[in-house]
Amino acid sequence: MRPSGRAFNELRSVTLEPGPAKHAEGSCLVKFGETHVLCAASWDETVPPWLRGGGKGWVTAEYGMLPRSTGQRMKREAKGGQSGRTQEIQRLIGRSLRAVVDLKALGERQIVVDCDVIQADGGTRTAAITGAWVALNQACNWAVRQGIIKASPITDRVAAISCGLVAGAPALDLDYDEDSTAQADANFVITGKGGLVEVQATAEGDPFSDEQFAALLSLAKSGCETLSKMQDEIQS
Amino acid sequence: MRPSGRAFNELRSVTLEPGPAKHAEGSCLVKFGETHVLCAASWDETVPPWLRGGGKGWVTAEYGMLPRSTGQRMKREAKGGQSGRTQEIQRLIGRSLRAVVDLKALGERQIVVDCDVIQADGGTRTAAITGAWVALNQACNWAVRQGIIKASPITDRVAAISCGLVAGAPALDLDYDEDSTAQADANFVITGKGGLVEVQATAEGDPFSDEQFAALLSLAKSGCETLSKMQDEIQS
Amino acid sequence: MRPSGRAFNELRSVTLEPGPAKHAEGSCLVKFGETHVLCAASWDETVPPWLRGGGKGWVTAEYGMLPRSTGQRMKREAKGGQSGRTQEIQRLIGRSLRAVVDLKALGERQIVVDCDVIQADGGTRTAAITGAWVALNQACNWAVRQGIIKASPITDRVAAISCGLVAGAPALDLDYDEDSTAQADANFVITGKGGLVEVQATAEGDPFSDEQFAALLSLAKSGCETLSKMQDEIQS
Amino acid sequence: MRPSGRAFNELRSVTLEPGPAKHAEGSCLVKFGETHVLCAASWDETVPPWLRGGGKGWVTAEYGMLPRSTGQRMKREAKGGQSGRTQEIQRLIGRSLRAVVDLKALGERQIVVDCDVIQADGGTRTAAITGAWVALNQACNWAVRQGIIKASPITDRVAAISCGLVAGAPALDLDYDEDSTAQADANFVITGKGGLVEVQATAEGDPFSDEQFAALLSLAKSGCETLSKMQDEIQS
Amino acid sequence: MRPSGRAFNELRSVTLEPGPAKHAEGSCLVKFGETHVLCAASWDETVPPWLRGGGKGWVTAEYGMLPRSTGQRMKREAKGGQSGRTQEIQRLIGRSLRAVVDLKALGERQIVVDCDVIQADGGTRTAAITGAWVALNQACNWAVRQGIIKASPITDRVAAISCGLVAGAPALDLDYDEDSTAQADANFVITGKGGLVEVQATAEGDPFSDEQFAALLSLAKSGCETLSKMQDEIQS
Amino acid sequence: MRPSGRAFNELRSVTLEPGPAKHAEGSCLVKFGETHVLCAASWDETVPPWLRGGGKGWVTAEYGMLPRSTGQRMKREAKGGQSGRTQEIQRLIGRSLRAVVDLKALGERQIVVDCDVIQADGGTRTAAITGAWVALNQACNWAVRQGIIKASPITDRVAAISCGLVAGAPALDLDYDEDSTAQADANFVITGKGGLVEVQATAEGDPFSDEQFAALLSLAKSGCETLSKMQDEIQS
Repeated sequence: MRPSGRAFNELRSVTLEPGPAKHAEGSCLVKFGETHVLCAASWDETVPPWLRGGGKGWVTAEYGMLPRSTGQRMKREAKGGQSGRTQEIQRLIGRSLRAVVDLKALGERQIVVDCDVIQADGGTRTAAITGAWVALNQACNWAVRQGIIKASPITDRVAAISCGLVAGAPALDLDYDEDSTAQADANFVITGKGGLVEVQATAEGDPFSDEQFAALLSLAKSGCETLSKMQDEIQS
Repeated sequence: MRPSGRAFNELRSVTLEPGPAKHAEGSCLVKFGETHVLCAASWDETVPPWLRGGGKGWVTAEYGMLPRSTGQRMKREAKGGQSGRTQEIQRLIGRSLRAVVDLKALGERQIVVDCDVIQADGGTRTAAITGAWVALNQACNWAVRQGIIKASPITDRVAAISCGLVAGAPALDLDYDEDSTAQADANFVITGKGGLVEVQATAEGDPFSDEQFAALLSLAKSGCETLSKMQDEIQS
Repeated sequence: MRPSGRAFNELRSVTLEPGPAKHAEGSCLVKFGETHVLCAASWDETVPPWLRGGGKGWVTAEYGMLPRSTGQRMKREAKGGQSGRTQEIQRLIGRSLRAVVDLKALGERQIVVDCDVIQADGGTRTAAITGAWVALNQACNWAVRQGIIKASPITDRVAAISCGLVAGAPALDLDYDEDSTAQADANFVITGKGGLVEVQATAEGDPFSDEQFAALLSLAKSGCETLSKMQDEIQS
Repeated sequence: MRPSGRAFNELRSVTLEPGPAKHAEGSCLVKFGETHVLCAASWDETVPPWLRGGGKGWVTAEYGMLPRSTGQRMKREAKGGQSGRTQEIQRLIGRSLRAVVDLKALGERQIVVDCDVIQADGGTRTAAITGAWVALNQACNWAVRQGIIKASPITDRVAAISCGLVAGAPALDLDYDEDSTAQADANFVITGKGGLVEVQATAEGDPFSDEQFAALLSLAKSGCETLSKMQDEIQS
Repeated sequence: MRPSGRAFNELRSVTLEPGPAKHAEGSCLVKFGETHVLCAASWDETVPPWLRGGGKGWVTAEYGMLPRSTGQRMKREAKGGQSGRTQEIQRLIGRSLRAVVDLKALGERQIVVDCDVIQADGGTRTAAITGAWVALNQACNWAVRQGIIKASPITDRVAAISCGLVAGAPALDLDYDEDSTAQADANFVITGKGGLVEVQATAEGDPFSDEQFAALLSLAKSGCETLSKMQDEIQS
Repeated sequence: MRPSGRAFNELRSVTLEPGPAKHAEGSCLVKFGETHVLCAASWDETVPPWLRGGGKGWVTAEYGMLPRSTGQRMKREAKGGQSGRTQEIQRLIGRSLRAVVDLKALGERQIVVDCDVIQADGGTRTAAITGAWVALNQACNWAVRQGIIKASPITDRVAAISCGLVAGAPALDLDYDEDSTAQADANFVITGKGGLVEVQATAEGDPFSDEQFAALLSLAKSGCETLSKMQDEIQS
């Protein structure tokens, strides 16, 4: 049995609530159990300086945690002074989203997706990617309705899930308690069509074997399939 | 008529939801119409260095806005690099709360109340003060129940409201549209017993007269009375 | 009796010395007793980026303290890293000056008034506002003489004074010792014609009543009237 | 054929020169072809504050690039202001080294390994990990000879290599030109005994398949085996 | 003839006014013509961490310019973010003062001398050193009178002057206009007994010869002799 | 005898290796005994904003130390946050190089010379200047060969050496041990034709006399003559 009581291949209760942020062009409140992340997409008619004149757009992300989203109060972070962990996460979210956007079709525009953790209980980066896609998709549909672009530049869905070796056994979607004691910690980002976008696995104690790694990948593929279906059912 | 359609002495729809943040010792989601602020109190068994050995505690606040809580995306701010506006607001919240806390009775401990604006539509600082008191009160009651302190150090309630001259007439609890065009902008922080804690009034265009100022103060006193009663009805 | 021996409605000895800074377009060394502030206005033919093309000018202020202007040595502060107190003060000075300048008549130009405290003994922000107006006025007259603008954009004088409850009684123009023990601390910014520009009052201990607040306002109005006359007598 | 003319499973010319930095407790100049990294280990008899009193030591890394190690001059970076890329790399190096150190056996001490890129031509992070292990090992042997610790806390060797899909085919140890056009980019950190410590794979364009990923892993295992033997042959 | 009309070996009008800063333990307002610097010494009963337990004290300096001390408004600077020029100057002032203080006799205490330029017209660093010695001396005498130390740790006087090649000829104590066109720019710090403490000479255009350098040194020795006598005549 | 066993007028073993950095337009690995500095010149077709439109170019330098180039590990420094010592050194290198470049002949271009200390044993700044000239010269010759400029803007060679009073006697080219105990520390920058570009001498303990200073200058002139010949013999 897992500490959470879930089956080893069982996701937490997941909900994707589209549109909670009235000022944003697209938004989603995503919940993976007690992990809650507010994702808000901002449409920007300019691209960063290094992309100007190239005919391509950009999609990027920022990740933050409310100071008391965690058991111990954390410090606020501003762009430029973010911790290594924060920067790794927001770079991962950005790359994951860009993998399913045709940046030429977007044109010289930028979409920034802010992923702010309201409450944390493990798996915030994978929840953020999954919700950020919903916000991004909503923003692109908004731009089509506004006549800003003719067709959405989104080419596929993308979702993410964490896996780990819990008490030696591969388990899906770890919560904070499970994550703290896992022997290996892995995150997978997978498209709606099943392609791999990102694979990251880290041994926390002893190294892991090829076979263990293969088991984690297999769990992740089934978990992302479920998340991808939920994304598909949202009207936006 | 006001742009919002409200009577000149009418508050927006106000709700105070206690306890939304599971990790915090006290919390409140406060809504003044479309202005939503999440207030979370963190109990800290140490005081800042400059207070050590003095036998007194401290209550302070931090204020932040989610990047897309507003119509235009804003930059994230970290402690030390916050804008003048942010620093003014969090210093105001801190002073307002300390006015109703017996810092000696608290002992050498600190309570930090984070006020994070989830959605902004004018009056975020007054909503924050009103909600922060609920979070603070809840944290103090928690500490009593835990046996950390014998009795709550809170000596009174405190609430805040904005007023302004809208189309020449004194109006209560301005929303963003009203605030943008007001001739004068004032914030009042008032205790449950009706004492004045903070008075701040600024002419945005022409200076205002003593009589106009007196009318704003009168509106604020009735508004804070209503808010104070709502605070009193919360069980925590 | 007040600790300073002054009557409760008595200002400290005040002097306004115009023109001490040979490089500046306008300047004033203002002394409120032992509080000495050097105000220097710099004329700038460009406006900040966010105002460009709008046909309006800008007036802003920076406030600083020499490290040993105070009893305890203080740290130097640079723009962007200033304390909350410093930012509040310089924002207040800037707003106060703008209240008496026709920014359209100024045209797309900026005037920066630096207020540097040479020696501090309470009331530095009110001395700064009072002296800054002299420096600003001098700079505008300079620009008229130079043929840069046709007429001065200044529409009125503006002065400021602090008041407080000292040993329970309302008192005018507190020095450092009086300020340290005051129950309430208030600053008023008032135009030559008697209009209110800024009202700020803070309870330091117990809240204060409406009546006490009214007494402070009344003292301030008479104090600012005196300061305004002194400003009027300066040739510049 | 690969752009570099190498076979798809062929490493660049690799050298590990131990001891080039006379002041450091351990050092290694590692070259993977034209990529040159100077690794220097500093022995520190104190641990970071958050580890004090826990009886365990720490191993960490910093990564830097000389401004003209690359085709385009880069900015110098200081701790706290490092780019997201730099932080990701130095966190990866630190985790990789800790995977083969018994931190309890090390005791409350810290070893910092600085990895400074003298010249860059792709694969700097994997070269750095491979060389950093040599510097770390040398520092631990130094400490044993000095009588500071009784036995080396190092439990295994660790090496790293990059792989990628070049023109659709899996290739080992990409240089800069190959890396720039690769469809997928992967880094593997593997112990002397063949255990997986870190797996990171990123799709640069189209997502990749499970089979492609398995081919990359297989190449990496053989590459790291070669590197591990070279590490073993160094006398230190 | 020099642009200033002075003889080539003639100082500007120099005054040293002791004691202008009422809060400081020692102070001096020094004027070299239109260059005015306020020097204030702060006595600190602790030394910086790297000196603790060594039985020696420290003397250091900070240098600043009021934003409008110059023809073009300058930015405020804080410790840690000061320009290279500012850091060079304050390091020079500190070294110059330490050359005439017995740091063991001072004991584990620090004296910080703040040198703030109120108005600049060339030669601010040499005026600052000359005035800083007066402030430092006054602070040490104050400490003797207070019974904090038994005897002043000051071993000699120290003064400084600039020289340069103006229109090919060696000239003493350059003002801003002369300095802007000088071919070489030199600063000399010399003790009361005539010993050299600091020699700094920089070619601004063509290199200078040994003979030219010798002439500058000769001028500086006579200038510092005059300044040293003025320091000696101050009662403090 | 000197601690190093060298004669008082004897340089350490000096080598100048041109071209070690394959990406740079010019480079030199300079060794003064155990002091090793890698100098790399970067050609930039734009000038800093304050020079644009003036028809002149710019030459500047940055100086850095690898964290473990010294006995005690040092912190990395980034532009804007460099220590006073680092800023002094890089300003000195830049001024020294500009003294032998015709900036008009260079045209509106900038050359940045990075001087990174790989290993430190005293005299890093003088080694850096000597090696930076080689890198700069190589970059200018490269630009001539590329047809970017018609003729090299370099007007002379420039080299630098340190001297000091060691055990009371003037000595040339101090290493770290000698420098730590020297009574006076001086650096001289001298052109190929023997002109003085920079003279800097600092008393570390007692002040020094005119005669002592003259002896240091004489040693430096002969040392720089030797270095200048070595620079002349390099083909680039």
